[in-house]
Amino acid sequence: MTVVATGTVHGVGLGPGAADLMSVRADRLVRGARHLAYFRKAGRTGRARRLVDGMLRPDVIEFAMDYPVTTEIAVDDPAYNERLSAFYADCTRHLAGLAGGGADVVVLCEGDPFFYGSFMHLHSRLAGRVPVVVVPGVTGMSGAWTATDRPITWGDDVLTIATATLPEAELARRIADTDALVVMKIGRHLPKLRRAVAASGRTQAAWLVEYAAMPEQRVTPLAEAADEAPYFSILLIHGQGRRP
Amino acid sequence: MTVVATGTVHGVGLGPGAADLMSVRADRLVRGARHLAYFRKAGRTGRARRLVDGMLRPDVIEFAMDYPVTTEIAVDDPAYNERLSAFYADCTRHLAGLAGGGADVVVLCEGDPFFYGSFMHLHSRLAGRVPVVVVPGVTGMSGAWTATDRPITWGDDVLTIATATLPEAELARRIADTDALVVMKIGRHLPKLRRAVAASGRTQAAWLVEYAAMPEQRVTPLAEAADEAPYFSILLIHGQGRRP
Repeated sequence: MTVVATGTVHGVGLGPGAADLMSVRADRLVRGARHLAYFRKAGRTGRARRLVDGMLRPDVIEFAMDYPVTTEIAVDDPAYNERLSAFYADCTRHLAGLAGGGADVVVLCEGDPFFYGSFMHLHSRLAGRVPVVVVPGVTGMSGAWTATDRPITWGDDVLTIATATLPEAELARRIADTDALVVMKIGRHLPKLRRAVAASGRTQAAWLVEYAAMPEQRVTPLAEAADEAPYFSILLIHGQGRRP
Repeated sequence: MTVVATGTVHGVGLGPGAADLMSVRADRLVRGARHLAYFRKAGRTGRARRLVDGMLRPDVIEFAMDYPVTTEIAVDDPAYNERLSAFYADCTRHLAGLAGGGADVVVLCEGDPFFYGSFMHLHSRLAGRVPVVVVPGVTGMSGAWTATDRPITWGDDVLTIATATLPEAELARRIADTDALVVMKIGRHLPKLRRAVAASGRTQAAWLVEYAAMPEQRVTPLAEAADEAPYFSILLIHGQGRRP
């Protein structure tokens, strides 16, 4: 009788978007991976997969996880949750099957896996079935404030991190009540976010960072930004706290 | 006449505390550094310096920057600011001298340099004098939530990051008004922080992470934690946001 040891699913943070900003641990796992999985928008290569181009073993077996829906259905429509839930269950079944058969799998995760990441939906479903290990990564927001060449927090500064998907009044309240600010998931919510920043009187202090750490990186004062931003954009207001 | 090109001062994020969690870019800079600088408490090796043990060139020239004061003087005492300000000016002079003479310098930074980091005080003083480049790192808080093996934010969760140095009432207000929470700089403020968490009724959801990603890593429910914590401890409350 042969006993096959269960493999491990590694959720590996790739960092904000430059290949050499992934950790040494992540780099080693990606280069050594026989089984590689990643999310992508159907019909696209996927940003995570593109980041590891040229790093993979010639015999790598890839498992592309194509989102069944991204912005075609509103997130508060029950159909959105149903479709995504079934999709995550399918992905989990496949990854658990690989690990159950003894294979280690590397799942590529943009930024840090546990910070608004898609892998979290697999992690919670895989937990208790097969071993899952997460490798933290440099967050997209660290990439963004580095792109502005200014610190985000000093001394006792409070930093609030919110998503632009929140209602406008709630965004405005949060922006008025913090020292430093990071807003994620902007995309088509930029006009609403801009109004919320204006309501708090902080437009002149706000920066929009698109594609941080990537070749297309762009840093724009919010006051000069157009009304559309890619999903991979982050709004920042730097803290001005105590410093000697 | 010989013209010497000005060198660059690199503020390099080392990540939360495991050597292989620094980025590939940081690893390359540290291993190649002829001039290496780092902060430390006087009389100690320093955690940043210890992390790169075994990685350095044999001919590396080290510049240890010993804090003239840590907790001996209260931060609101003017003498604290004066001492630190003079210290940062001295460090800046030395680093600017090296770079002015054509040398590149690597300054070791725990976590991410622009997130509550000491290097920020040199960065603002060096800016405009010599080229300064920052390499972002995995934050200590990413290390902390990875240590708990649970995501920090889901869906539309708001994440508030505060320091335990804030007044108790302000901490309590912040903790009551957020989905997810990270508290940094705990140390001797733990009893006050514990009362603030209790006032918001969230003690059962709070975790204390000490020495994340380091060999001494420890994850403790706040309710079971002792009343003293090292400076390198982080309090977390995980978000419970929307998920399919």
